[in-house]
Amino acid sequence: MRNFKITIEYDGTNYYGFQTQKNPHLPTIQETLEEVLANLAGEPIQVTVAGRTDAGVHARGQVINFRTNWTIPVERVVLALNSGGLPRDVVALEAEEVSKEFHARFDAREKIYRYTIYNSRIPSVFHHRYSYFVPQRLDIDKMQQSAQHLLGTHDFSAFKAVGSTVKDNVRTIYEARVEGHGPLVTITLRGNGFLYNMVRIIAGTLIEVGRGKIHPDQMAQIIAKRERTLAGTTAPSQGLCLEQVIY
Amino acid sequence: MRNFKITIEYDGTNYYGFQTQKNPHLPTIQETLEEVLANLAGEPIQVTVAGRTDAGVHARGQVINFRTNWTIPVERVVLALNSGGLPRDVVALEAEEVSKEFHARFDAREKIYRYTIYNSRIPSVFHHRYSYFVPQRLDIDKMQQSAQHLLGTHDFSAFKAVGSTVKDNVRTIYEARVEGHGPLVTITLRGNGFLYNMVRIIAGTLIEVGRGKIHPDQMAQIIAKRERTLAGTTAPSQGLCLEQVIY
Repeated sequence: MRNFKITIEYDGTNYYGFQTQKNPHLPTIQETLEEVLANLAGEPIQVTVAGRTDAGVHARGQVINFRTNWTIPVERVVLALNSGGLPRDVVALEAEEVSKEFHARFDAREKIYRYTIYNSRIPSVFHHRYSYFVPQRLDIDKMQQSAQHLLGTHDFSAFKAVGSTVKDNVRTIYEARVEGHGPLVTITLRGNGFLYNMVRIIAGTLIEVGRGKIHPDQMAQIIAKRERTLAGTTAPSQGLCLEQVIY
Repeated sequence: MRNFKITIEYDGTNYYGFQTQKNPHLPTIQETLEEVLANLAGEPIQVTVAGRTDAGVHARGQVINFRTNWTIPVERVVLALNSGGLPRDVVALEAEEVSKEFHARFDAREKIYRYTIYNSRIPSVFHHRYSYFVPQRLDIDKMQQSAQHLLGTHDFSAFKAVGSTVKDNVRTIYEARVEGHGPLVTITLRGNGFLYNMVRIIAGTLIEVGRGKIHPDQMAQIIAKRERTLAGTTAPSQGLCLEQVIY
């Protein structure tokens, strides 16, 4: 059997997240992909994903892999997928044939997520699907200063959604950047893994720093105390995008 | 009665154009605005628009005006509209109280339209709502060279939708620019007016120039011959945006 690694991009607005929802049945990215793949392969195909994204979350560089017996040459796979039934909000960017051991999730070493805020007095019709509208003035320098406390290896329990059952809450953040580009403010995080809702809770916390509600250096205590209630609210899903998975 | 001039932005994807459609009844920008305005004013309000846009066409700087007796101070009108029931794909940007003679359409001196092409081998999920995907390589220099023939005062019958009943087909184009920004190619036209589908037919023609199907200087003959069949196809609506109306 051949094993394919595919990099995909999607607009998550109209999907109930990546992972197939059975009860009730709701449209997901996984189901959308598996349906097109099964048509191309003439047999059921099960997809493994690098990072399960939530409802409304986008991806510019999600990675999946799947095993199949099809005979499509690797250089024709991207076109076959994009012209083979994928809707306009899910696109294949790159395809690679990989060793049969490759696993999109277990082999991922790092992920880059970006959270985008639209910071302006007036919302934008062209950005609302891909950003979180914050009308209050944000101090980007303070946000950037505060984000530096995230760097390194920490127990990130303070930034984990209540109800998540993951046991090991230690993760390493290699890069944390807050940048302004006109009305857009982006928070970019590169790490070896992220807890459930971690990026959105970090974004919610940094927004409160930007608004002057939390002192930039308070981030260190929030991490150290490991209490979800000390961090900010969970910023909404539409601002989040999985940018890249590094192997 | 007071007369208000409002600059608005909209994502036209989910609308059947600006103008109210009665038969069958379909969602339009005009109806969306008039409903919110009537709620704020407590009386029916009729909107006059600078440029009626077609189904799927966007606007970053559309202008409307309407007469009302409401007592809302002008500096609160934008917020009142945006928080008063406008959906996320229609936003008020600016409000001005104007003389009672002001008419959004008749007083417009110039309009700026932009047509956006996404020129890449692979489509983009984040641009497909706001651009026309063209996978074939486009020669931007040739398109820019060709667009210069549009400048000045001409009978633009060659670029008018079949079926339009407008009598006077003479318009003046002051500015015509074709620019590349990564995979995005934009065609910007500033003129004293545009015939029905004129920008989209010009875009369709310039795309054929960019693909090498039409010689750049052939544009002069297409204009001179005034025959719709010599120009290119009508490029799809989602690439078009009304950028600005100048008074």
